[in-house]
Amino acid sequence: MSLKLTILGCHSATPRVNAHPTSQFLEIKNHNFLIDCGEGTQVQLRKYGIKFSKIKHIFISHLHGDHIFGLVGLISTFRLLNRESELHIYAPKGLKEIITVQLKLSNSWTHYPLYFHELTSTKSELLFEDNKVEVHTIPLKHRIYTNGFLFKEKIGERKLNMNAIVNHKEIETCDYQNLKIGRDFKLQNGTVLENETLTFEPLKPISYAFCSDTSYFPEIIPIIKNVNCLYHETTFLNDKEELAATTKHSTAKQAASIAKQATVNQLIIGHYSGRYKNIDDFKTEAQEIFENTFLAEAGKVFEIN
Amino acid sequence: MSLKLTILGCHSATPRVNAHPTSQFLEIKNHNFLIDCGEGTQVQLRKYGIKFSKIKHIFISHLHGDHIFGLVGLISTFRLLNRESELHIYAPKGLKEIITVQLKLSNSWTHYPLYFHELTSTKSELLFEDNKVEVHTIPLKHRIYTNGFLFKEKIGERKLNMNAIVNHKEIETCDYQNLKIGRDFKLQNGTVLENETLTFEPLKPISYAFCSDTSYFPEIIPIIKNVNCLYHETTFLNDKEELAATTKHSTAKQAASIAKQATVNQLIIGHYSGRYKNIDDFKTEAQEIFENTFLAEAGKVFEIN
Repeated sequence: MSLKLTILGCHSATPRVNAHPTSQFLEIKNHNFLIDCGEGTQVQLRKYGIKFSKIKHIFISHLHGDHIFGLVGLISTFRLLNRESELHIYAPKGLKEIITVQLKLSNSWTHYPLYFHELTSTKSELLFEDNKVEVHTIPLKHRIYTNGFLFKEKIGERKLNMNAIVNHKEIETCDYQNLKIGRDFKLQNGTVLENETLTFEPLKPISYAFCSDTSYFPEIIPIIKNVNCLYHETTFLNDKEELAATTKHSTAKQAASIAKQATVNQLIIGHYSGRYKNIDDFKTEAQEIFENTFLAEAGKVFEIN
Repeated sequence: MSLKLTILGCHSATPRVNAHPTSQFLEIKNHNFLIDCGEGTQVQLRKYGIKFSKIKHIFISHLHGDHIFGLVGLISTFRLLNRESELHIYAPKGLKEIITVQLKLSNSWTHYPLYFHELTSTKSELLFEDNKVEVHTIPLKHRIYTNGFLFKEKIGERKLNMNAIVNHKEIETCDYQNLKIGRDFKLQNGTVLENETLTFEPLKPISYAFCSDTSYFPEIIPIIKNVNCLYHETTFLNDKEELAATTKHSTAKQAASIAKQATVNQLIIGHYSGRYKNIDDFKTEAQEIFENTFLAEAGKVFEIN
């Protein structure tokens, strides 16, 4: 099982020539999820060759501009591209009003079905689920109502142990599906072959937690415990710990501390304040606490197997 | 007298990697006007080194996304840059609602005075005036309520003819201002020196007309007659004349015809549809009718003296 994450933007506050606000494109199983949509996201999608038609679900963490100002443009572009398929947007309450007032006043209603799933709960909730993937909110602590998102593969089917199966002529191809879902096999002589002797454990499901923006907020740890990959904002370095607290953001040190406590496998950091010229300093600070830390950068692709 | 126009974006519909939607920065007298504000305009301003603090007046032609989706981001960035000076926005009715709903729901009110001047008239009206410059609307014909804008220098003071003045000892420095505003000079012996013998005509005032988006609409000609520079949209080439009519846009041929009929000095074209790979074709088509045609391109600066 695998997951592919493309960073479209990872800087805070205002878009600049080489600093794009938050947006990520996540491929997990057969799903393609867009997470947050700062101004210019649609240009970043084009730049990195991501087909617009792939996107069917958009998750918005909160209503600050650096996370949503690119959304109405993307929605409008879908219309100009003659999109017909449904688009689902999961976002804090208010986003529907923001988008619809613009579509109404510009007389540019979408021709495709557009669904808003507005969020208000401060407890983690299931937003999306099918037989392969589920998405939950991660309530965060920011200046306005904000959620992170936990993307989890479901446990898949067991893998056939063909070397064992071929020793039993009675097992036919039509029996394989029952073996994959864990059933034992009963021979005609009454002997029961236990499933574990005929199959291997399913691949371990992959999980990804996206957390932006938030104060240092250890309450999220039970939700993100042991995820394969955690994205956690690091607007500031430790030199601005007080400013981080005031503006309800995190430092690199705090993000790394969350990663360590949640025993995640890998940490990606981003949402850098424009005041820092060298983003490597974020990595250095985080790695003092959590070694397996990586810097988000526009265009960077993380593949997690 | 002179005018400097910087093209920030000149493509229609959707922003792409090298195709930015409409925005222009106009320097005329001591004023700095931003005209339209498609998504990504603030990045274009940074790219071309234009100081954000210079902008005090923004003119918005209409509420289609490719002309406004960058505005809320720019307004928010002004706040983050701790702007204190007034910002005036002249735009069709509805823009205030679009902007304020976003500022309200993101809890990001501006700390500086923000004034909306909402437009509804279908007749040309004076929007802004001081002792040097005036700005009028140019009602256009598009799918939604749309105005172009006419920026005009006022006639300046007469220029002193120092070679003539030095022949008259009685004329002192304190008299110069009266000469500049056209008064005759009376010598002590009663002789009247006519102003024309002591001064030259003032420099011819410069004018710029911005027209985007619009059908072919000759009704604008009396308003833009003899301007130094006309920007006129050319979304399509003549091969798509019917589509231009349907979508209420213009072809290069039609823009050139307007320029010719209005006997303007110079035509700039832009707002190219993404379907055309070579924008030189727009220039070729326009120049068959109006020779002094130039292509708008992001970053291009037009200086008109």
